Amino acid sequence: MLNTIRTVADLRVQVAAWKKAGLRVAMVPTMGALHEGHLSLVRLAREKADRVVTSIFVNPTQFAPHEDFDAYPRAEARDAGLLDSAGCHVLYAPTAAEMYPDGFATSVSVTGVSEPLDGKARPHHFGGVATVVAKLLNQCGPDLAIFGEKDYQQLLVIRRLVRDLDLPVEIVGAPTARDHDGLALSSRNAYLSAEQRQVASALPRILKEAATTGSDIEATEKRAADELLAAGFDKVDYVEFRDGEDLTKLSGKAEAGTRIFVAAWLGKTRLIDNMAV
Amino acid sequence: MLNTIRTVADLRVQVAAWKKAGLRVAMVPTMGALHEGHLSLVRLAREKADRVVTSIFVNPTQFAPHEDFDAYPRAEARDAGLLDSAGCHVLYAPTAAEMYPDGFATSVSVTGVSEPLDGKARPHHFGGVATVVAKLLNQCGPDLAIFGEKDYQQLLVIRRLVRDLDLPVEIVGAPTARDHDGLALSSRNAYLSAEQRQVASALPRILKEAATTGSDIEATEKRAADELLAAGFDKVDYVEFRDGEDLTKLSGKAEAGTRIFVAAWLGKTRLIDNMAV
Repeated sequence: MLNTIRTVADLRVQVAAWKKAGLRVAMVPTMGALHEGHLSLVRLAREKADRVVTSIFVNPTQFAPHEDFDAYPRAEARDAGLLDSAGCHVLYAPTAAEMYPDGFATSVSVTGVSEPLDGKARPHHFGGVATVVAKLLNQCGPDLAIFGEKDYQQLLVIRRLVRDLDLPVEIVGAPTARDHDGLALSSRNAYLSAEQRQVASALPRILKEAATTGSDIEATEKRAADELLAAGFDKVDYVEFRDGEDLTKLSGKAEAGTRIFVAAWLGKTRLIDNMAV
Repeated sequence: MLNTIRTVADLRVQVAAWKKAGLRVAMVPTMGALHEGHLSLVRLAREKADRVVTSIFVNPTQFAPHEDFDAYPRAEARDAGLLDSAGCHVLYAPTAAEMYPDGFATSVSVTGVSEPLDGKARPHHFGGVATVVAKLLNQCGPDLAIFGEKDYQQLLVIRRLVRDLDLPVEIVGAPTARDHDGLALSSRNAYLSAEQRQVASALPRILKEAATTGSDIEATEKRAADELLAAGFDKVDYVEFRDGEDLTKLSGKAEAGTRIFVAAWLGKTRLIDNMAV
């Protein structure tokens, strides 16, 4: 049975009891509006640990004022049902006041891997992510925490943060869950009209074609961006090959171990995806 | 017997063993060059916990390029002897490479309490402090950590950091240890010539006179600064009354619950002190 917890104090009592009993604890931090991608993380957490905490917190500090914080889908009752079915033990859903009480004044920032791609397109995004993830991990104190490769750059930022601040937790990356046509599952897919959803299926197809070893990087980036626009996308923020470890920009021929990253807009909806070459 | 540990991994093994045995662990973070002030923190730690870890790490990131990082006194063998006598169980002395390995890219910053006083005089200081203290606390995982009120602003920055990032540790402030003439003990006192040391004794005397309830704040700040210069100090960075909780600047009459803070130079040596009104 899923137990819903709303305060740091209650969460710590629960996790301390589990640890005292010798149980291994996994955390799955999310912003809710759960889909099969999140549930695949919860199932992986169950394989790797005895107890699973899924957090749901739509973190205001990782949205810029013009972004979709207010519109971001929230459906806690539905999310709780899905988590219960997936075998999650605790839904941790703190309030904004619990996360950012009066006088809050601390931020965590990561340079390097947080700078290109979405770091450029969304300048304050990863600072907000790093700070809230540091908080969530410290609040829960799990043995491991699972993040999806859908947000691959976020995963690298969090790995860096955890190593650099010596957070005593193992970070596990999990493969991107995809729809029948290959579209990466995302809470933001809910924004798409039926027509936009059809156009969206071009994204994983174009990305997969591009993610081929030996292809010329610059020509492929250009061609993929053109194909996205031709398929009906309204704007392309980036299509870039980058090193899979440190996100260094690449040129020449695409090699194994590199990844291709894309962010593109359908109307007001921004979709991101990435694939290994 | 004091055990010296140099790596995060070894420290965690030791602390985990203590915790498994139900022992309460206190940490005393220092930059070494230990004096009676540090040892008073170690003794307080022994009162409050079963096991005490004192860290010694002269943290390069909290010194500006023109400051005294290279000159800062280092005396590990002597420090180890003092810690042993004071009943400390572990000296944790990591290398710079252990603390900041290649690729290190994360920083913690605190606004508000870190901004006035030494935050103004030493712009990058508290960012370096916040980052290294977050790391040390995460590396050790103590139940409590003790910091001296000598560095009162640092204590407030660390309290804020720990609250804001939800570090699972209790922060304990300890009273300033003073020499026979009232001079706050500091590793930097070792820089003073015999003559400068005599002049330095004016600092606690002037501060104590100034820290009187009901005195006019602006006039007292001005008078104390003048008295420091008249006594032989070469430069005064600040003499300021501030709120003892949030360091808000004060005016009017000095009230109980406020503090007076001073930073002043004797030659190349910068001394700081503070007292409750």
